[in-house]
This record gives sequence, structure tokens and C-alpha cells, in this order.
Amino acid sequence: MGQDGSPAHKRPSGSGGGLPTTTVANGGGRGGGGRGGLLPRGRQMQKTFNNIKITILCGFVTILVLRGTIGVGNLGSSSADAVNQNIIEETNRILAEIRSDSDPTDLDEPQEGDMSPNATYVLGPKITDWDSQRKVWLNQNPEFPSTVNGRARILLLTGSPPKPCDNPIGDHYLLKSVKNKIDYCRLHGIEIVYNMAHLDKELAGYWAKLPMIRRLMLSHPEVEWIWWMDSDALFTDILFQIPLARYEKHNLVIHGYPDLLFDQKSWIALNTGSFLLRNCQWSLDLLDAWAPMGPKGPIRDEAGKVLTAYLKGRPAFEADDQSALIYLLLSQKDTWMEKVFVENQYYLHGFWEGLVDRYEEMVEKYHPGLGDERWPFVTHFVGCKPCGSYADYAVERCLKSMERAFNFADNQVLKLYGFGHRGLLSPKIKRIRNETVTPLEFVDKFDIRRTQVETKPQN
Amino acid sequence: MGQDGSPAHKRPSGSGGGLPTTTVANGGGRGGGGRGGLLPRGRQMQKTFNNIKITILCGFVTILVLRGTIGVGNLGSSSADAVNQNIIEETNRILAEIRSDSDPTDLDEPQEGDMSPNATYVLGPKITDWDSQRKVWLNQNPEFPSTVNGRARILLLTGSPPKPCDNPIGDHYLLKSVKNKIDYCRLHGIEIVYNMAHLDKELAGYWAKLPMIRRLMLSHPEVEWIWWMDSDALFTDILFQIPLARYEKHNLVIHGYPDLLFDQKSWIALNTGSFLLRNCQWSLDLLDAWAPMGPKGPIRDEAGKVLTAYLKGRPAFEADDQSALIYLLLSQKDTWMEKVFVENQYYLHGFWEGLVDRYEEMVEKYHPGLGDERWPFVTHFVGCKPCGSYADYAVERCLKSMERAFNFADNQVLKLYGFGHRGLLSPKIKRIRNETVTPLEFVDKFDIRRTQVETKPQN
Repeated sequence: MGQDGSPAHKRPSGSGGGLPTTTVANGGGRGGGGRGGLLPRGRQMQKTFNNIKITILCGFVTILVLRGTIGVGNLGSSSADAVNQNIIEETNRILAEIRSDSDPTDLDEPQEGDMSPNATYVLGPKITDWDSQRKVWLNQNPEFPSTVNGRARILLLTGSPPKPCDNPIGDHYLLKSVKNKIDYCRLHGIEIVYNMAHLDKELAGYWAKLPMIRRLMLSHPEVEWIWWMDSDALFTDILFQIPLARYEKHNLVIHGYPDLLFDQKSWIALNTGSFLLRNCQWSLDLLDAWAPMGPKGPIRDEAGKVLTAYLKGRPAFEADDQSALIYLLLSQKDTWMEKVFVENQYYLHGFWEGLVDRYEEMVEKYHPGLGDERWPFVTHFVGCKPCGSYADYAVERCLKSMERAFNFADNQVLKLYGFGHRGLLSPKIKRIRNETVTPLEFVDKFDIRRTQVETKPQN
Repeated sequence: MGQDGSPAHKRPSGSGGGLPTTTVANGGGRGGGGRGGLLPRGRQMQKTFNNIKITILCGFVTILVLRGTIGVGNLGSSSADAVNQNIIEETNRILAEIRSDSDPTDLDEPQEGDMSPNATYVLGPKITDWDSQRKVWLNQNPEFPSTVNGRARILLLTGSPPKPCDNPIGDHYLLKSVKNKIDYCRLHGIEIVYNMAHLDKELAGYWAKLPMIRRLMLSHPEVEWIWWMDSDALFTDILFQIPLARYEKHNLVIHGYPDLLFDQKSWIALNTGSFLLRNCQWSLDLLDAWAPMGPKGPIRDEAGKVLTAYLKGRPAFEADDQSALIYLLLSQKDTWMEKVFVENQYYLHGFWEGLVDRYEEMVEKYHPGLGDERWPFVTHFVGCKPCGSYADYAVERCLKSMERAFNFADNQVLKLYGFGHRGLLSPKIKRIRNETVTPLEFVDKFDIRRTQVETKPQN
């Protein structure tokens, strides 16, 4: 685009977008000044200087663009990175398509829209005789007992949203989290259901566990306990077992503190990130009483205001399942509390901040199987939200802490195989004992399933 | 940087890096021409025009930088995206740190470097009496039998590298893949080990399965079969069971075609993406014979050349475990083949390309439990490599096909719960039957564990 002739547009070499550079053609412009002949020396210098400025400027921004496109430190890298970038861009495009969920074969498009505040939300048709239905079924199906090897059958329910995380690292930590759960549950004979679907569009997000818990209870009569566990909670005591004998007279086992609950009405008195619910009529009734604050939209928003007013320390936001449960148990205390065990003798849920820096100290002083502050059963990364975008804590602190917790647990699993991580931040492992031609002596010694002890919480 | 005074540097508004813009100060430069007074009109126009050019240019590259930084289509988005972008950038920085594995607490830094071509690689100390060691142990430990409910105990081994995928979507599909395996294995009483560690730095990548298989055999004497399955292989027939009775006299079960193997010596005659290896001395010996082509560096490179020369259709690249196994079984046929079952009556491994477009047709015409081309047991996404960068197939085709396979399988799992996906590309689900107050009739009807039949492959 020049006034006379066409200035030379040169594309810089290298991969990543090319930027046009304009070299101002010699010969000045229209209007005054010599044209055709040599310019005065001073003017020539000025023009040259201007050209240099423009070249430097455009070279600088070219570098910035390349840097932004192909990443720091990769200047001058090969076309492989351009291919890589293309793949990532194409992936993002496909992701956006999948996220928009524009499948032409989608039938029965639901009526989108929030539930009317006047409608009454129900999880499902009211069942009133679940205990006897279940008992009859168990009698008729002895090949599906509700106890296995003398222990009540537990099913661990966890999950994550169906779509890729907003923050890519989120999926990687979801993967590690489920591996962690696979390891614990394999060693303790617990089945896992990993839910990636919203059974009820009204109850999405943290509320999604309610319809899924109900559905699993009704579909798995052989299961005695449904154990919900958040995707951001990791097992960190691989040896510890839930002391089920403590809960023979209870139907809900949840970590919390009675004084925070009854005296302070604190919104964090209990934690619904990890709790057990017995498969029985009482639990179906609890779910039915719990759910009504859940439907998204005006109901959930209004309920949130009620909860914020009622519970100590609760910020203003829509109703969440944890606050709603606390509210329910407080406002209908006589109905429910008799069967609720508020557990804090071990970390059924262990808030991560006070735990993650002490793992080395724990290894030095204690041993697995304790489940409490000496060797926490579960380390729960509340507020870290690696899958989403709006964490309550610094990203670096969260990611490194989750890495440490994962490796701390993994070391306990790898011990049987003779390995351990090089450090709590390291994905690499090293041998912790030599191999032998008689490996079974170590199986006898280290296989957790063979060294199970009924852990008694300290009182 | 100006000849006179200082040109105004203005940072453009908005997030993502600011670019300096230079507005050339009015008043011209040194040397000729009027200074201080008004320039001739023509010169003024030229200067103005030059300024406009520079402004447009720099504005253009600013847009490019922003576009590259915050993604297409996000121009003018809110500060939330800036926060999001900051989180993602910080995450990437942390990721780079984790990938570089710079943990100061790392002890015993290994001697990096390839194995000398003269050294002989061994997986571990040579065991010669594993069958009798195992038999004695099983006798002494009746609480850990090698059969459960009349079926030999199987352990499924799968895994992925310890670090986040180069392509972020890769971790999401690894997550879906492991959920798919969790579902199948829960329904069939199979234990899972998800390996995210390299037990032997020499045998990384696709070779990593060998030391892990050996380690699991020696650590789990109660396990009769180790089943290796790639992370890019999905179960697509949730009902089908491995017909173990077919393999009573065999120790390795692998999908393949005898004519491709013996007549054509094709490098894809067998597929090591999904195979079963019995826990016995024969298998330890096979692993020992298989491993020597694996150590990375000159050994693996040289071995690759041998394999390319020997096997039909093999491209030139380092030795992979599949080619090495084919080579071993061909070159030492008499030693091994008697105990190898080359299976193709059902899709122990099913190459995805010919399968994924037919799922709707399968639903229409057939039913789960067949395991073959009518309803494939396993759909294996060979060459898609969602975790890495260098796929052999188009990214879009791969991702959409994996989504379809996942949902095709998930529908079979969700059926018990009364749900199904809205379409094979949709993460959303819908009810496929109404809820009732007597849910156990559906449990009797749809619970796969209750409808297990010993499937006989067609002959």
C-alpha cells in the first residue's frame, strides 16, 4: 500500500504467522522534496533511521506473535511445532463443537428452562417400602450378598462433568484422582462407579450426586453403603479402613464437628465431599428432603439466600448441597440426627491446607493405617478446582500440593512392587528394594490385603 | 527513541501484552525541510499517511498477538477471560516445571544414558521355578484363590505416561477410557491396575508394559491372567466375556491372523494392544525373550532396522513391542507357538476404522454379547494418539469416533439405570424408561451380572 509503486512486502522467514513488513520505498513521497534524485544527506539519514525504527518495531512484534503462538523458548523451532499448534487449534475447534453439543441426531430435545418456583421438585416416585423390597430381593438372590468376607458391601461413587475441563490440567488431575481411587478400592474390595452424566438437568453441578445416589441404591440392592467422594479428594492412607462397626445404628456417616454444627450453625460444620449413606428407606427419605433446594434457577438462588442468612460464615451464592444438608439437619434435628454419625476421629474428609506440607514428617514419625492427623485417610482439595477457572487458592500451590498428595499415596501402593517416587513432586520412581528370585516373601510382607487390621480410632 | 523530544509511546488498552506504538512526533526531523513551522501540505499528507500506515500495521499486529494469546472469537471478551488466561498461563508454567522434574528432594539421580549395546538387558533376576512357588503359595493362602465364582481371576493392566498430555484433550480421553474400563471390570469382577510410572527407564513408552506385567505376576500370585489393554482401546461390548475355556492349554491369547503371521510375516499380524498372559513360568520366559529389543537408544534403533527388514509392511522406526513379539514368535516358532492362541473369532482387539460408523446399524440389527464384527468387544483407536501430537489420522475423525465408541458402550452401562445418551456424539443423557416404585424388576431384567451367559464364538 504505497503512494508510488509498491513497497516491498517481505514475509519474515520461519513458522508461525507471517507479518507483512513495509519497507518504505526510497524516493520519498508525493509533494515536496526531491524525487528521483538523491535526497540531502540529513534527510537520507532520517529516512534510514525511520526505516530502522519501523523494522525494529515490526521485528519486535513479529517476535511477540511468534512467542505467543509457539511458546517461550521455542524460537527457531522446527515445523513440528507448527504442526503441533495446528493440531491443538483443530482440537479446540472440535472441543467447542462438542461443548455446544450440536448433535443432529439428538432426539427429544428437552424443554430448556428453569423449574417454576411453584412446582414441587421430586427425585422420583415416592417409595415407602424399600427396606422390605430390598430384604426380599437379597433373600431371593443369595449369589449377591450384601456382605463380602464379613464386611458390608460398599460402592464408591465419584465423577466429573461430561465435558473437558476449562483448564486443561484439570483433566490430568481427574485422571490421577481416579487412579488413586482405583488403587484404594482394589485393595479394599470396593466397587467404583464413575459418573460422567447428569441424570437430572435440574440438579447439575454439586447437586448431581443426589439423583445418582438414589439411582444406585435402587439399582444395586446388594450394596449396603453408597460412599460419595468428590473428584478433588484423594486417598492418602491406603491401609486405613472405614470402621463400619461404629455405624451399625446409623445411616449417614459424615465428617464434621458437632459444636460447629449445633452451636455455631457454621456452613462448614459438615463436609459433603466424602460421606457414606446406607442403602435403606431412611436414606431415600433424606434424599427426598434434601433435594428441594437444588433445582437450578430461582429456586436454587432463593434457597441460597435463606442459607446465607441462616448459616454462619456462608458467603452469598446459590444453594449448595452441603449448606442445604446442614440446614436440613439443624431445622429437622429430631427427625434425622439420631441416625447421623458426625465423624471426626479420622479424616473421612481432610482439608488439604494443614496436611500437605507435613507428609515428609508423617513418613518419618508415623505409619499408614492411622487415618487421622498423623496419617490422613483422605486429603481433600477443597477450593482448588483444577477443572474450572475460578479457584479460591493459588494455582501453583494447589497443583503442587495435589501432586504431593498423589505421590504420597502412590508410594504406599508401589511399596508392594518395590518402588517409590523419587520425591513427592516427582513422577519418576526408583527401586526401594532389590528384586529377588523369591518374590513371594515380599507379597506376604507388603500386600495390604493380607495385613488388614481393624483400625480402632483413638478416643 | 527519537531525534527530537520523545515520541509519545502509548500502550493500547485491553488485556494480553501491550505493544508500544510509536507516533512520530510532528515537526519532522533533523536536516532539511521546515522545522517548527507548518510543513508543506503535501509533506503533511505524506507524514499523516505514513502515520496511518504505521498505526494500522501496529494495530493489526496487536490484534494478532491478542488473538494468539486469548484465542479466536474472544475479542472484546470480559476480564474473566483475562483471569482465565492468566490461570492457564500459570498452569502451563507449572506444568513445564513438573515436566522438567526438577524436584530438589530427588535423591539417587540415576545415571542417564543409554544401555551399552554390549550389555545384556534383563527384566530381573532369572526365576526358574515360578509355577511351583505359585502353587505352594496358593495352597498356603486359601483366602486368595486363583478362581472366583468358578472363573479364573483376571487383572486388567492399563496405563498412561505420568505427565500431562502434550495435547490437552488427551487427558480427557484418557479419563473417559479409564471410566469405560472401570465399568466393564466392575460388571465382570476384574481388578484394574492403572500404571502411571516407568518401572524401568530403559523400557519406556510402549515397552513399559513388559516390566509392569512381570512385576504384577510376581506380586499377585492369586491372579491367573494378566490382561494388558492400551489406553486407546475401549470396551464396546459390555456383556461379552472372554471365553477362558478356549485357552486352557494356552498361555498367551492375542488377536491376530495366522496367515498374516506365518505366510506374510506382516508387522500387523498380531496386536499387542489387548492380550492375555497367564501367570506362569512360560510367560516369565516369554517376557525375558521379548524384552531384549526394548532398551532405548542404539539397541532399540538397531533392532528396529532388523524388524523393518524382516516384517512385511513395517515402516522404518525404532523397535516396538508388537513387531518384536511377532519376530520372536516367528523366529522361535517351535519354542513358543504351541502355547499361543491367535484369536480372531471375536474382537479382543478391533481396529476402529471399520467399526465406528456402524454403531447405529449394530443397535438396529444385533445385541450385546456377540463380541465380533456384529457388536465388537473392543474398539481400538490405533493411530489416533489423542495424548500426543503426531497422529496418523485426522484429529476430528479420531475425536468424534472415540466419542461415539464411548457413548455406544456407556449406553449399555446406563441401561440398568434407565438412561441413554441423546445421540452417539452427545454427552447428555435422557431417560429410556420411566421410574417406578418397584425398581427391582428392572434390576432382575437388566443387571448384566445376572444375565451372564457363556458366550460361544461362532465357528
